[in-house]
Amino acid sequence: MKVGIINVTGYAGADLARILANHPEVEISSVTGRSGAGRSLGSVFPHLTGLGLEITRELEGSLDFVFSALPHAASAEALAPIIESGIKCVDISADFRLRSKDVYAKWYEVDHPNPEMLGDSVYGLPELHRQDIAKTGITANPGCYPTASILGLAPALQTGIIEHSVIVDAKSGVSGAGRGLSIKTHFSEVNESVTAYGLDGHRHHPEISQELDALAASNVELTFVPHLIPMTRGILATSYSRLTSDFVASNDHLHTTVRDIYQQYYKDEAFTKVVDSPPATKQTLGNNDCLVFPTVNKENGMLTVISCIDNLVKGAAGQAIQNMNLMSGFSESSGLEQLAVYP
Amino acid sequence: MKVGIINVTGYAGADLARILANHPEVEISSVTGRSGAGRSLGSVFPHLTGLGLEITRELEGSLDFVFSALPHAASAEALAPIIESGIKCVDISADFRLRSKDVYAKWYEVDHPNPEMLGDSVYGLPELHRQDIAKTGITANPGCYPTASILGLAPALQTGIIEHSVIVDAKSGVSGAGRGLSIKTHFSEVNESVTAYGLDGHRHHPEISQELDALAASNVELTFVPHLIPMTRGILATSYSRLTSDFVASNDHLHTTVRDIYQQYYKDEAFTKVVDSPPATKQTLGNNDCLVFPTVNKENGMLTVISCIDNLVKGAAGQAIQNMNLMSGFSESSGLEQLAVYP
Amino acid sequence: MKVGIINVTGYAGADLARILANHPEVEISSVTGRSGAGRSLGSVFPHLTGLGLEITRELEGSLDFVFSALPHAASAEALAPIIESGIKCVDISADFRLRSKDVYAKWYEVDHPNPEMLGDSVYGLPELHRQDIAKTGITANPGCYPTASILGLAPALQTGIIEHSVIVDAKSGVSGAGRGLSIKTHFSEVNESVTAYGLDGHRHHPEISQELDALAASNVELTFVPHLIPMTRGILATSYSRLTSDFVASNDHLHTTVRDIYQQYYKDEAFTKVVDSPPATKQTLGNNDCLVFPTVNKENGMLTVISCIDNLVKGAAGQAIQNMNLMSGFSESSGLEQLAVYP
Amino acid sequence: MKVGIINVTGYAGADLARILANHPEVEISSVTGRSGAGRSLGSVFPHLTGLGLEITRELEGSLDFVFSALPHAASAEALAPIIESGIKCVDISADFRLRSKDVYAKWYEVDHPNPEMLGDSVYGLPELHRQDIAKTGITANPGCYPTASILGLAPALQTGIIEHSVIVDAKSGVSGAGRGLSIKTHFSEVNESVTAYGLDGHRHHPEISQELDALAASNVELTFVPHLIPMTRGILATSYSRLTSDFVASNDHLHTTVRDIYQQYYKDEAFTKVVDSPPATKQTLGNNDCLVFPTVNKENGMLTVISCIDNLVKGAAGQAIQNMNLMSGFSESSGLEQLAVYP
Repeated sequence: MKVGIINVTGYAGADLARILANHPEVEISSVTGRSGAGRSLGSVFPHLTGLGLEITRELEGSLDFVFSALPHAASAEALAPIIESGIKCVDISADFRLRSKDVYAKWYEVDHPNPEMLGDSVYGLPELHRQDIAKTGITANPGCYPTASILGLAPALQTGIIEHSVIVDAKSGVSGAGRGLSIKTHFSEVNESVTAYGLDGHRHHPEISQELDALAASNVELTFVPHLIPMTRGILATSYSRLTSDFVASNDHLHTTVRDIYQQYYKDEAFTKVVDSPPATKQTLGNNDCLVFPTVNKENGMLTVISCIDNLVKGAAGQAIQNMNLMSGFSESSGLEQLAVYP
Repeated sequence: MKVGIINVTGYAGADLARILANHPEVEISSVTGRSGAGRSLGSVFPHLTGLGLEITRELEGSLDFVFSALPHAASAEALAPIIESGIKCVDISADFRLRSKDVYAKWYEVDHPNPEMLGDSVYGLPELHRQDIAKTGITANPGCYPTASILGLAPALQTGIIEHSVIVDAKSGVSGAGRGLSIKTHFSEVNESVTAYGLDGHRHHPEISQELDALAASNVELTFVPHLIPMTRGILATSYSRLTSDFVASNDHLHTTVRDIYQQYYKDEAFTKVVDSPPATKQTLGNNDCLVFPTVNKENGMLTVISCIDNLVKGAAGQAIQNMNLMSGFSESSGLEQLAVYP
Repeated sequence: MKVGIINVTGYAGADLARILANHPEVEISSVTGRSGAGRSLGSVFPHLTGLGLEITRELEGSLDFVFSALPHAASAEALAPIIESGIKCVDISADFRLRSKDVYAKWYEVDHPNPEMLGDSVYGLPELHRQDIAKTGITANPGCYPTASILGLAPALQTGIIEHSVIVDAKSGVSGAGRGLSIKTHFSEVNESVTAYGLDGHRHHPEISQELDALAASNVELTFVPHLIPMTRGILATSYSRLTSDFVASNDHLHTTVRDIYQQYYKDEAFTKVVDSPPATKQTLGNNDCLVFPTVNKENGMLTVISCIDNLVKGAAGQAIQNMNLMSGFSESSGLEQLAVYP
Repeated sequence: MKVGIINVTGYAGADLARILANHPEVEISSVTGRSGAGRSLGSVFPHLTGLGLEITRELEGSLDFVFSALPHAASAEALAPIIESGIKCVDISADFRLRSKDVYAKWYEVDHPNPEMLGDSVYGLPELHRQDIAKTGITANPGCYPTASILGLAPALQTGIIEHSVIVDAKSGVSGAGRGLSIKTHFSEVNESVTAYGLDGHRHHPEISQELDALAASNVELTFVPHLIPMTRGILATSYSRLTSDFVASNDHLHTTVRDIYQQYYKDEAFTKVVDSPPATKQTLGNNDCLVFPTVNKENGMLTVISCIDNLVKGAAGQAIQNMNLMSGFSESSGLEQLAVYP
């Protein structure tokens, strides 16, 4: 299958190329870049030299599948003609994630360029929407924070065992901020430091809310605070919620019961795994796993869930390829078998 | 004033020596070490070579003031005869922090060696107990997590503006785990990774609870989850609570009012400062500040407070010296004027 | 092919398991550990949980190939009966690297347990000894420093363009020191610091010398100074030597000519690549490449070569698998196609 | 003494403010910034909030001493009128370091704006030029790499015990590249990686050469290769040279004799110290020390010297203050007594 990558010159785009290079069903046949057009891919990312690709301004040749790793707004504009031509796509930007164009406009401060397409796209979290993804032509790849946050809370919300107020305290490596230069990602400022940000509202908030609300079939109050961690890859989300009094009253072994619910929920998943001890982000470095660890304080019924991913893999390129596999009828884990690079 | 340091060979002990070296009222005249007795201090910590000190097994010479940086239980045992001889002390261990010997025994899994002394000691958080510290002979220096956590929540709890259920999600640099070897502090395991720990209960939990309960004059439900961050120094605590409905109903400008309450609360403090933007731990590296940033979500009345310190300074050695200053009639900030080493 | 790994519980052993998990010709059928016998591999290394392996005290079952990742001396003892039984092996320890048992005894301060086997083993640097590796039953996998150092200097020494005195200033990530605990690999000591070590002589010195001498067919004076860098993976060797006056006199374009010599030397190599700009270790993270960048100061004829690898892959597990491929008649790069995880 | 800082908004400027804040003889009375004029210093650098300073476009008020932390060319232009008005200055840029305007023009690719002033300035390495610094009105503060490199080699060159060909392999933290944004200092690119740069010639090369030549009273062949290390502060220089055959022939205990020469050379220095074991950059974090460790390979007479500093302190702001102390008749270590923040 011939695949194109729009904007390969960001970190998500580069990780698409890295992973697809070993995908048995895929040939990367065209890559574009906002910067770097006319240069070889290896001159921008030396680790991709072996792919022998040139960066062009526009996609070239006949393609069977397209990924876009452009920023929001630019991504929908670039994908619109491709979608209309019938080529299946995964969009890594935020453009097709939100069901409401008004919510989109509020958070992204721009009118959606193609609001009529919102109805056709599917939110690309396979654990929740696998069947719809398999049928759609345009999948909206989830954000990195939403992937970790939603997967940590989905079993509890969908089974109705927690109250509808949750706090997600998320910790992200710096690559989540992309390859664009900023004093906030300048090495000397970030290294040996941790800080919270987005306290006035982060753009991943409405996306998390949309999915949590759907899981709960009700409005879920969400407090979401992201933090920047001095590491390159990885997101760890610590989610706090309260078990319902009904659930507490009707279960003697809260912790075990909750773990069973989580294990049952993810028992058939290839990548999302309920683990036995608090996971470290390093256990997912470079691979597509999401590790989930729920734990209950039996004295007060608080549920704390730790969930972690590699933000560029399960949080971006890996999940995009997982979605491509579903949309293309390949094995869902095709090309994604690589284990984490630990330590 | 002649000062002794018991167990100078840990990180808290070494930072005591570093800071005291430039204290205008202090001469470090004796230092001991569990390891290293008989060696020069400079052979263990080359940056302290200039002090010209030898590590002995026991304190030597006539002393006016003693710090203990021993682990719990050992510390109380070592300090007991010193206290009895009338020499003032600051204990950096947990031995004199908890008012209840039963709570101590439960969390530290050992009977307190000198329970009769618990009544004489003062919990050494100057922002809360300044006057008592000035009068006591034995100050229990707070833990690093409690210092950041309590200072972040004290204004809200003492003024009664939040409900009595709080979540503290804390992020610590690795030096908080001390100088003892462990796979959990092995570079290759910790670097480029973040993880939660202590989910079954961390020993700083009862200490935080004790102070929060006293501030609220009521029982405060506490969920406390510490995380290990790949950096050496620094703790950042993100505290979540809910403003009371009375407070929300009676205030039009929640965020501003809460900030005013916080600024008023700390207006005379030399080290605890309410800041204008989310602080980074690096802004406190090597100095005794605690930076506090409260923010309110006006839609749902959630109060999120970010507070951060250098875990070895305000979280250990610096605060111990601040306590010594109070106990000795020196200026409270004497020897602690050094600014953060940024970046 | 059924493969066993002796001492899977160190970093080299774990990386063998990680890479072999996706090797098309290999089934990992038995793994041992000095620690951890009786436990599941996933309980020691959670990222290897999916392999479903148990750690045993001794290798079990019928095996076609064995890797040993034991420390020196222990490794030869463990491998001796396996070698005698005719099973092919790669030894990641130093036991079969040195041709001389006296040199071994001097540097490793122990008599070689099986000196009679030294003659049968081949030094497993495929770029130099490919044909011999393909024929041997026991390959000595090179050390991480020697791999980077020798590959950086081999073209110059073998073609005779430099004088026989070289300096190798090497910089290594901390995982090269292994998983054993030491104050030297304690996070808080290593992080945010760089230091030289081994100034009295590092055990990789005789190994580098042995190969450099062979390449030059003469004695090469070697100064080798390793440094510890605050990162987990990666070695970068900066090698300094002087072009011979004959070579300088007979070439107008020194830099270009030297680059041509290097490119010619490695033109058929799958993993060792002459690159166009100074490489960063991150460009090899998790993969088997060795990147080489030679540059000449035309004013004084000094040749500086930068060479870098992932110390656990091309410097250990990856090269061991490359050797296994050669010894087993597989494609040399089988199982090793994974690109670097960048950034 | 009233002091002004030109361009306080870079890292060197900020560290000047940090250290001067506690200098007993100094009041910081005016600070300028290329960016940030009109803002408070605390809004750019929160750790400097307590200084209560406003950033202005030009220096204001009557001043007794001025530091410039501007880039080259801009610095000389800004300082020229100040020098002419008779105010003493330390220039942290490269503008007054090189004796030759032609060498300056070649390496900095710009004509020197005030070549007539080159004769009046003194190269501000107190260990070499203390008396001249005390008498000058304009001191050129050395670069960070030159400080570490020259102090490592000075005793050997000045006493004539080594041949006149040296290699300096230097490793620097990222703050040495300043606060300006660049993909080369973008966290995700630099973290977990090490690389060489400046292989075509680094601007600190002529500066090192100028001083080494003067020490040797002869031309010294210099190979200088800087490397970027994933840490914020610190430079470690590893210098390689060869003892003269005369020296080798006439000394039985080479290592001890060389150490004695080094210790004698620096015996009266407050900041440059010959240490007993290979130093780590962390031992100088935040303070003004230069630690030097010479070692000799007795088999071949190679001298390897490790020298390290905090690049922003002894490599910039601290040394500038040391120079100010000398120029102003203060104690040379005034304001610089702070010990390293370790770990």
